[in-house]
Amino acid sequence: MTRIWTAALAVIGDEILSGRTQDKNVAQLASWLNVQGIRLAEVRIVPDVEDRIVAAVRALAAENDYLFTTGGIGPTHDDITVDAVARAAGVGVVVHPEARAILERYYETRGGLTEARLRMARVPEGATLIHNRVSGAPGIRLGNWFVMAGVPHITAGMLDTLTGTLEGGRPVVSRTIGGWVAESEVADLLRQAERDAGGEGDARVSIGSYPFFRDGRVGANFVVRSADSARADACVADLRARLQGAGYVITDGGI
Amino acid sequence: MTRIWTAALAVIGDEILSGRTQDKNVAQLASWLNVQGIRLAEVRIVPDVEDRIVAAVRALAAENDYLFTTGGIGPTHDDITVDAVARAAGVGVVVHPEARAILERYYETRGGLTEARLRMARVPEGATLIHNRVSGAPGIRLGNWFVMAGVPHITAGMLDTLTGTLEGGRPVVSRTIGGWVAESEVADLLRQAERDAGGEGDARVSIGSYPFFRDGRVGANFVVRSADSARADACVADLRARLQGAGYVITDGGI
Repeated sequence: MTRIWTAALAVIGDEILSGRTQDKNVAQLASWLNVQGIRLAEVRIVPDVEDRIVAAVRALAAENDYLFTTGGIGPTHDDITVDAVARAAGVGVVVHPEARAILERYYETRGGLTEARLRMARVPEGATLIHNRVSGAPGIRLGNWFVMAGVPHITAGMLDTLTGTLEGGRPVVSRTIGGWVAESEVADLLRQAERDAGGEGDARVSIGSYPFFRDGRVGANFVVRSADSARADACVADLRARLQGAGYVITDGGI
Repeated sequence: MTRIWTAALAVIGDEILSGRTQDKNVAQLASWLNVQGIRLAEVRIVPDVEDRIVAAVRALAAENDYLFTTGGIGPTHDDITVDAVARAAGVGVVVHPEARAILERYYETRGGLTEARLRMARVPEGATLIHNRVSGAPGIRLGNWFVMAGVPHITAGMLDTLTGTLEGGRPVVSRTIGGWVAESEVADLLRQAERDAGGEGDARVSIGSYPFFRDGRVGANFVVRSADSARADACVADLRARLQGAGYVITDGGI
């Protein structure tokens, strides 16, 4: 058993709350954090309103080891994340000289660094840059806060830069088995298997049950998670045996 | 100008926070709410932990006209939403006789109503049912709180049942124009167009700028939103003229 490290994400964007854009950063960040040994503990999606962003950032940062934001760091009037994050941290906003230099180089052949573009070099005082090979604009690191882009492939570039640099615990391993099982028929069996698997802290085993309806039949996948991989494997073997004992054909990896 | 009605959503699910499942209910609910004249003001994604669900439900309900939850209403041990919502409301949990009857009918030819399946008939005291033509299990309404399924097409069936039954304001209209425009070149123009479009309360016009990179070129779509459709249309016409005046080819509906 080791300590559990947690992160939270504030997704900033009217476009998500209006239904116009399907968010992809939650799943992307969650998967990346798993590999770093950090759990995504909460997400809040808030509108492009400074007070709302400040409140979400403060609340999430107070309860987690790391805070991420996505969205609102472009050059236009609706991009207010840097100001909100600075206010949440109680610091001012400055132009970062290296960010300015990056943008000057990037826009040298693209019409030059205008005042609007220079907005993308503004950072909370004391911040460092998260380099991004995809576009000119860097992300921002302020202590354990990480300010990322809204466009998923740009965020992917920033996460790539951060890989291996954040302290975390053991990664959570996740094993899936599944079959043409109505989950309501095996509810007691699942509860029992989870209880018997035990584990404390990050070693605690959880079993998630995810039903589906496909080709006119009901089925379910069962996801066993724990940071203790031996314990997770033992639970999978036990659960598989219980389900097979109840007469089901079970597929490793899920169906 | 009329009153702005707001809703919040608590997404309950380890499967979303682990990155295993891509959420689709945020976009689905947001689009549905727009038509009802209600704005989705905040989303919180929380794990399958009762205290965390209770805290999110209470906080979101206190600040919005309507509260929705998705996920965690199935028959298995990890489905704890009903208990959490009842606790947040300060009421007990009871078996709803109509829900029980629905499940008895549904499972009559599917192996009968077991104890696990009967869990899906449990509701917070005082709740009514939200019928769902897709599967047996109903959703739950408790005053202005709505407890929905996690599986998106089942939630769609529940929302369909609720269509037209929730008091709201004027729907927000959303108009999009776009072009092969680097948004950083038109940032001032966008800010000015939004300022000139004006409007108060639900009539206030907002312009969102959504850049993209496609076929080796940068472009952007601009989304104009307001509950005052005449004001939105006037802003679109003004913005189109400004962009064309700056030399861009602009496509209605966006590109």
